[in-house]
Amino acid sequence: MEKVELRCDWPTGCGAPRRKRRRRGKRKRRGMTEQRQLLTLLLWWRKNVEQEGEEAIVATSRAKQRGRDSPTWKVWKWQTCFHSHDPAELPDMNDPLIDHSEGQLFLNEAFKIIIEEVLCKGTDVKQKVCEWKEPEDLALLLDLELRAAGEPQQRLLQRVKDVAKYSIKTSHPRFFNQLFAGVDYHALAGRFLSEALNTNLYTYEVAPVFVLLETEVLRSLRQLVGWTEGDGIFCPGGSTSNMFAMNLARYRLFPEVKSQGLWAVPRLTIFTSAESHYSVKKGAAYLGIGTDNIIVVKVDEGGRIIPEDLEEKIELTQSQGAVPLLVSCTSGTTVRGAFDPLDRIADVCEKHTTSGCIGPERDRFKSVDKLLLSLLKVNYMLHVFCCVFQAAWGGSVLFSEQHRHLMKGVARANSVAWNPHKLLMAGLQCSALLLQDTTNLLKKCHSANATYLFQQDKCYDVNLDVGDKTVQCGRKDDCLKLWLMWKAVGSIGLAERVDKAFNLVAPVIKERMIKQGTMMVGYQPLGDKVNFFRMIVLSTLVSKEDMDFFLDEIERLGNDL
Amino acid sequence: MEKVELRCDWPTGCGAPRRKRRRRGKRKRRGMTEQRQLLTLLLWWRKNVEQEGEEAIVATSRAKQRGRDSPTWKVWKWQTCFHSHDPAELPDMNDPLIDHSEGQLFLNEAFKIIIEEVLCKGTDVKQKVCEWKEPEDLALLLDLELRAAGEPQQRLLQRVKDVAKYSIKTSHPRFFNQLFAGVDYHALAGRFLSEALNTNLYTYEVAPVFVLLETEVLRSLRQLVGWTEGDGIFCPGGSTSNMFAMNLARYRLFPEVKSQGLWAVPRLTIFTSAESHYSVKKGAAYLGIGTDNIIVVKVDEGGRIIPEDLEEKIELTQSQGAVPLLVSCTSGTTVRGAFDPLDRIADVCEKHTTSGCIGPERDRFKSVDKLLLSLLKVNYMLHVFCCVFQAAWGGSVLFSEQHRHLMKGVARANSVAWNPHKLLMAGLQCSALLLQDTTNLLKKCHSANATYLFQQDKCYDVNLDVGDKTVQCGRKDDCLKLWLMWKAVGSIGLAERVDKAFNLVAPVIKERMIKQGTMMVGYQPLGDKVNFFRMIVLSTLVSKEDMDFFLDEIERLGNDL
Repeated sequence: MEKVELRCDWPTGCGAPRRKRRRRGKRKRRGMTEQRQLLTLLLWWRKNVEQEGEEAIVATSRAKQRGRDSPTWKVWKWQTCFHSHDPAELPDMNDPLIDHSEGQLFLNEAFKIIIEEVLCKGTDVKQKVCEWKEPEDLALLLDLELRAAGEPQQRLLQRVKDVAKYSIKTSHPRFFNQLFAGVDYHALAGRFLSEALNTNLYTYEVAPVFVLLETEVLRSLRQLVGWTEGDGIFCPGGSTSNMFAMNLARYRLFPEVKSQGLWAVPRLTIFTSAESHYSVKKGAAYLGIGTDNIIVVKVDEGGRIIPEDLEEKIELTQSQGAVPLLVSCTSGTTVRGAFDPLDRIADVCEKHTTSGCIGPERDRFKSVDKLLLSLLKVNYMLHVFCCVFQAAWGGSVLFSEQHRHLMKGVARANSVAWNPHKLLMAGLQCSALLLQDTTNLLKKCHSANATYLFQQDKCYDVNLDVGDKTVQCGRKDDCLKLWLMWKAVGSIGLAERVDKAFNLVAPVIKERMIKQGTMMVGYQPLGDKVNFFRMIVLSTLVSKEDMDFFLDEIERLGNDL
Repeated sequence: MEKVELRCDWPTGCGAPRRKRRRRGKRKRRGMTEQRQLLTLLLWWRKNVEQEGEEAIVATSRAKQRGRDSPTWKVWKWQTCFHSHDPAELPDMNDPLIDHSEGQLFLNEAFKIIIEEVLCKGTDVKQKVCEWKEPEDLALLLDLELRAAGEPQQRLLQRVKDVAKYSIKTSHPRFFNQLFAGVDYHALAGRFLSEALNTNLYTYEVAPVFVLLETEVLRSLRQLVGWTEGDGIFCPGGSTSNMFAMNLARYRLFPEVKSQGLWAVPRLTIFTSAESHYSVKKGAAYLGIGTDNIIVVKVDEGGRIIPEDLEEKIELTQSQGAVPLLVSCTSGTTVRGAFDPLDRIADVCEKHTTSGCIGPERDRFKSVDKLLLSLLKVNYMLHVFCCVFQAAWGGSVLFSEQHRHLMKGVARANSVAWNPHKLLMAGLQCSALLLQDTTNLLKKCHSANATYLFQQDKCYDVNLDVGDKTVQCGRKDDCLKLWLMWKAVGSIGLAERVDKAFNLVAPVIKERMIKQGTMMVGYQPLGDKVNFFRMIVLSTLVSKEDMDFFLDEIERLGNDL
């Protein structure tokens, strides 16, 4: 008969206080004793795992402490226990009332699977990035259907394993598909902690730590932009950040739009390049502005906005009776990775700003024909979306002394949307909207002043109740992960990540290529992109195989970079 | 000299394949050997933990396997190793290049802290729900500042502990503050897995499992609503679900609003009660409709919409030249928990719907004066927001045979927003927008057809690329947690949770109260709320102390429920 040892691998500290409490004569229903934990485990094992000819041995932590590591408690002891109970009293793993000890046992097992399947195998270059299955086959494999009855723990753990197995390993060194590759373990620990704490970032009352962390992280990010003051908020993704910027620009110019809607204001236009992120389009549609009111500005050969064309378009729009609302620039466009020339664009914006028109002059708009608007210049916002390119740079270049020049002039923007979940690897989602504004625009624009949540007679400064700065009600904490990662590697560490991504790859591959003599190819900066391999195909001897070899070789040489 | 044993508590399966690979002669930089792991651990311990007079002993798993559990490898062995290396070559924990083994060690330690501090202590009724600190004090305690240099692992683990300590324990049995109390460990395991897999739910390519899970979960939720067909999507919160419903209603009626903006269509109005969730207000402002265009419908003494008043308001609005867009009903209002009478509201909606006006008749709108609109009846949507009350019911009553009558008529709605992160305890965030629509409205309304993401020449059915159904770009997986929890307890288990929340508390407290004879108070259903304690204060003898006792006693008696 094969002996199987069952143990409760409970973290220390969980069992101890409970035992103490019991000694003091208090017996709680919640908080199982170790004995009960082991019993549950044993029953579960017997129900789901046990093979014929196996015998279970359970070992308590006390037995271990006393050095009795050899199995002394045999299964028959528990069997006695088992038979002396009314089956109805025995713990049922599917009982809808939460049993914390059983739950934590499951979580512990699931964590081991996550470490092994997602983080060990998932980052191992010898393993596959994805285990491709046709949708129909995958649906069968996963047994998707949700049924009336619950399932045993063992099968649920197998499900955890299956989900991990058939999911894409985005932390795999060969995942180049999107901009959220890689894993940072400090950030991941922060994410697990946020999930376990399960709170909403709306009041200091329910999220004291997160409110303070968010304030600090936003302050530090603003500092990198070059602002000593300002505001900001973490949003569920960069698209939302961009939409918030649009809404803020609209409210800043026409506060009445909040109550009266767009019918009360003249037609508004948004300026951006054709290479900007598609969320500008989505935002214009969603906010009721309409995609036709996005004015597409021409780009140069490097994919950057041409300021002169922007100026022309602004003037043209005004002559048509529309009001320029926002210039949306991109630092690191989605496909080509271009950085719009922020300084020169800011010049254009400033030239077309008449501060006086916001106050009394704007009131005149209502009484006169909309066409008269063309005679007036209005104050509008400059928004920078630090989107990211394939090589994943974008806003994060601000960390790097060497590369921050790419975003020269960013401090002149009114708002910046920045996704640390990309290059910085903070994990999905982590997207900050930063504002230069100090007039509480964010709250004024988005607030609904729900009295059940944002009472004004609290025992602390109600400005810490940041929830009304967003159009969401519940909002997840997206800053702890960034804060913890930043604490772990420091600004220097984050800057190094940026610099390495920019500088290291091409020269090192080139050096190895030369030393191993397998092939030769040049690389060079191209426009605002730091380095590109420049492959010259002149020889008539070049075959398809050579092309394949070229690609394979670059990959081989740069494999560990 | 005190001996300290250092071990690598690596999950099995991580070390083994690496050792095998090395034996085959391949030496990888990633994937440390156990020896290297132990060295790193030792260095870290020496740098951060070691006290004078302590000696470290490290034990390998192989030593353990052979039964050599007694410490045989002494620290001097490693010291030799230490001194024979160039310090620059030694692993630096703050190296910005990710070291997976070190990272996993950190994650492992952080997980133990999460289990102990958040899940064991955080659910223990003897512990505090919150460790209150004034914001200034908490900021000091947390040492928020983000600096140039990184920090040692030990200090980072202390930070994890601090964040846990000073955060609110929303899983604590006495957390009654908001609607996301409690913890479900299967859901939490799903959340950890989603975080580790770190992918975006936009294409089948990057999220094959999540796309299929979402489809299945939405199908099952729709089935509970009573629809055999339809569409849907998980949103970052219920407010977003409500806004999506508004945007869909708008697009359905006036598709041109997407390109031309609200200036091209007549004024739109939204009908809801004053007791509905504040996200209706926020949504109207955000989408450019304006809060003034929310028409507040009167409620009865139970807080439910009065259908006759709705009808009057609709007719009044039409006579003013505006177009009724959406009736937003609530199942479980935020403060009183009222369920709007969906069936009767649907009758009103159907009465005011003229299907013909969507097609050719609508085209006439453009050429005639907007005031003429008052003569036409238009097709508009009925949206149900399954918001939740303090006792956390809402949409989840659909699971319960006993209580689903509260949402009678829900199948006649066009859309339903449902937050399983509330009563069902799936964890923040888990909010589904369900649609009866089968015309691909969601995608038509929200899509931007980004060619870099949603290519049409993929090797699988591109309808599985669900990302363009939302206005987000990146979207987190919010369904795995619900799917896994549902698999674990089944629909029956979820129904039991609902029934217990509704039925059990008051009668059981009452029974205990009588048996212990401490006090007496009646309870009764009130309107659509199942039970309320009805405290009658007539006696002149009642003191403030008695009132306190009353509240304390109910809490004491119902403590474990």
